[in-house]
Amino acid sequence: MSTPCIICVAITGSVPRKENNPAVPVTIAEQIESTHAAFEAGASIAHCHVRNDDQTPTSDPEKFGRLLEGLNTHCPGMVVQLSTGGRSGAGKDRGGMLSLRPDMASLSVGSNNFPTRVYENSPDLVDWLASEMCTYEVKPEIEAFDLSHIHQAVKMNREGRIAGTLYVQFVMGVKNAMPVDKDVFDYYVKTMQRLAPEAQWCAAGVGPGQIVVNEWSIAAGGHTRT
Amino acid sequence: MSTPCIICVAITGSVPRKENNPAVPVTIAEQIESTHAAFEAGASIAHCHVRNDDQTPTSDPEKFGRLLEGLNTHCPGMVVQLSTGGRSGAGKDRGGMLSLRPDMASLSVGSNNFPTRVYENSPDLVDWLASEMCTYEVKPEIEAFDLSHIHQAVKMNREGRIAGTLYVQFVMGVKNAMPVDKDVFDYYVKTMQRLAPEAQWCAAGVGPGQIVVNEWSIAAGGHTRT
Ligand SMILES: [Zn+2]
Ligand SMILES: [Zn+2]
Ligand SMILES: [Zn+2]
Ligand SMILES: [Zn+2]
Repeated sequence: MSTPCIICVAITGSVPRKENNPAVPVTIAEQIESTHAAFEAGASIAHCHVRNDDQTPTSDPEKFGRLLEGLNTHCPGMVVQLSTGGRSGAGKDRGGMLSLRPDMASLSVGSNNFPTRVYENSPDLVDWLASEMCTYEVKPEIEAFDLSHIHQAVKMNREGRIAGTLYVQFVMGVKNAMPVDKDVFDYYVKTMQRLAPEAQWCAAGVGPGQIVVNEWSIAAGGHTRT
Repeated sequence: MSTPCIICVAITGSVPRKENNPAVPVTIAEQIESTHAAFEAGASIAHCHVRNDDQTPTSDPEKFGRLLEGLNTHCPGMVVQLSTGGRSGAGKDRGGMLSLRPDMASLSVGSNNFPTRVYENSPDLVDWLASEMCTYEVKPEIEAFDLSHIHQAVKMNREGRIAGTLYVQFVMGVKNAMPVDKDVFDYYVKTMQRLAPEAQWCAAGVGPGQIVVNEWSIAAGGHTRT
């Protein structure tokens, strides 16, 4: 018996605009339509960002609420994961949508560098986001941009600050963070098996690394994000 | 033939005060005396922080200059490494002492969490500190608080942004960063051998992890910091 592979579709992200790719869904209506197509094609999780009218990213709970409602209606049974990422807001604004009780939300548990800046996830903010997810029973997807983030997630899980079975995503290929590297990927998998054998994990490669990391992940028995 | 083990003595650090431990050398005179004793006991590198009169950490180049001069006089042949760490200043203040042309300086090439805050080393600041070290021919000791920092150092070295043979220190046991973990330690060593076989590495454990990490490091053929 093999474990089914969960495909998570990241429909919009926080960076690309219509001028980069006209197919990027930006309005709520476009996002619902695009997710519906991915759902019918086999995706089980929708990883969601929302945008302002000028396409800039936002953490606006009202926008997230409309998207969540639309996805629940059009894609019954699909798991909806809202982003609490730092490109869409700062501080507690990043978690304002958690009270909507989405199925899942992304959670960074450490800090690292991004292409042009520090991706700041202070210990206080991490603790607050994690506790909000406990309060509203939102399942976190841990975004591991580096090895210590896996250790930190396991620690928080053991201490009860993250509830339930861990779900960790390895993120590779972000400039100035962890590159796309097969040896590191294998060590991430080994680390999960060592520290949290009951956990589930998935992996995402950025840009040209996307397909490569998808293939590694599926071959190693993990889940994956498009 | 075996490789000699380099012992680096961190004489003061940026955190402990006289009230924590009366033996912590705080004034320049105390620092020179303490380093001299360590030098005679076999230490080859002095890792140096300087303090204000109220014991708070500073990056003041004048203070670093007096310490450097004293160490060169009292400990001839000892390698002096000045800290550019973020507890002693912010932004470019952290590198104001590099024009003194110490033998070495510490260099963080990524960001991570510390016990109560984000240890911020933005890409711009990292590039500036590295280029100042090239300009003044200061040998960097890379402070690797996480795995991606090793990858980033290797990349910068290959691109010529860090000159010469890499010297990397693994730092373990800082809360909210990488814990003291033997499997990770072994993987760090393996990563150095894979990506930069000609490089030298050392390791430091914080607090109760200090002796443990010293022992691992010496047994694995690396250098170590007290
Ligand atoms: Zn995202
Ligand atoms: Zn529909
Ligand atoms: Zn130091
Ligand atoms: Zn002396």
